[in-house]
Amino acid sequence: MRSSFASLYLSDIGNTNVKIWRDGDIEIFPLSDFQPTIIKEKIYFISVNREFSKRVEKLSNWIDISNLFKVETEYKTLGIDRVVAINNLKNGIVVDVGSAVTVDIVKNSKHLGGYILLGKDATFRAFRDKAPHLKIENRDLLNLETTPLFSEDAIYYGFFHSIANLVLSLQKRYSIDNITVTGGDGKELHQILKGSIFKRELLFENIIDELKKDNII
Amino acid sequence: MRSSFASLYLSDIGNTNVKIWRDGDIEIFPLSDFQPTIIKEKIYFISVNREFSKRVEKLSNWIDISNLFKVETEYKTLGIDRVVAINNLKNGIVVDVGSAVTVDIVKNSKHLGGYILLGKDATFRAFRDKAPHLKIENRDLLNLETTPLFSEDAIYYGFFHSIANLVLSLQKRYSIDNITVTGGDGKELHQILKGSIFKRELLFENIIDELKKDNII
Repeated sequence: MRSSFASLYLSDIGNTNVKIWRDGDIEIFPLSDFQPTIIKEKIYFISVNREFSKRVEKLSNWIDISNLFKVETEYKTLGIDRVVAINNLKNGIVVDVGSAVTVDIVKNSKHLGGYILLGKDATFRAFRDKAPHLKIENRDLLNLETTPLFSEDAIYYGFFHSIANLVLSLQKRYSIDNITVTGGDGKELHQILKGSIFKRELLFENIIDELKKDNII
Repeated sequence: MRSSFASLYLSDIGNTNVKIWRDGDIEIFPLSDFQPTIIKEKIYFISVNREFSKRVEKLSNWIDISNLFKVETEYKTLGIDRVVAINNLKNGIVVDVGSAVTVDIVKNSKHLGGYILLGKDATFRAFRDKAPHLKIENRDLLNLETTPLFSEDAIYYGFFHSIANLVLSLQKRYSIDNITVTGGDGKELHQILKGSIFKRELLFENIIDELKKDNII
């Protein structure tokens, strides 16, 4: 058990960004710039980036907690972020809309497979590179019934509607009600997926639950 | 009427590639390298690239045929390639899987809107840039029922399954049977969209039909 006076530090290392959780506050750094030695306190982390995991092996305050999480699956290369996202889930589809978009299906506590799609930023950046005149901007309100009548809408809705319809088809195929959406760009997908739950920080929530269950914090 | 001894040259100018049709043979050049002056013969073209259209204004053998094609739509910025793809269509969904993926819906000869998604090459390139260890390769056979159990599959199927499910949802919403798939990467989408028709060179076919109808060739 840690002292209740100390801050709790957690980190989720992706291939693009480093997310640091400190007592509920979150900071995001580009992976390329991030210096792990700036954190002096004990920090529990998961990482999909092998190079980063190697870099912090020598830092005794960086504690890799990957081995706390297990999932039953035939998927051969399931990233630890996706394992954490579905930790202790019985039935559900989890969609993480971040630098990449991952979709994972769990039925009767077994992971049945999943998808990886390109994230919003990378997708829109690719369009802006090809057609700089396009002004693709965030929308306040999305729905799944509007068919776009403008190129910027066609790109913006195209990104979210194609993911949403993939998720709905999986929901139907596997007879799963429960859809959880997470990730920095997840709110818009949650809006168009009626009945879905949005947990922006699902991974950190699941990490904390597991650390508590294992009496680590 | 042109002489039946002369070759027929057509061109479809995108924002990434230049496609040249010569009597049914097709060559593709990167737009950035392409010199329109290499073509000495009369060539009928459509272009979504304003810069290119301006460049060939002075070349008398480059004949812009955009004005032959009209479509009834409320879509404000429908590219000429998409207009040509749905030319004379009464009811149908046309999916062009090229450098970008466009999806267009026509009902009772009216265009009802559409989508633009990132193409296969740009999507997979973005993944390879982030995760160079991934070997995303073309598959011989695709279906819509397989849920991926491997990251390369998750990316490859993710691209095609998300487009396919978007198209199926539009088919259902608008009660449209007819799906036509075109474009260099269209064959795989056609495979997973049961009942769809694949016409790799739909645009050139529609251009030729229109040129004949208008007694230009």
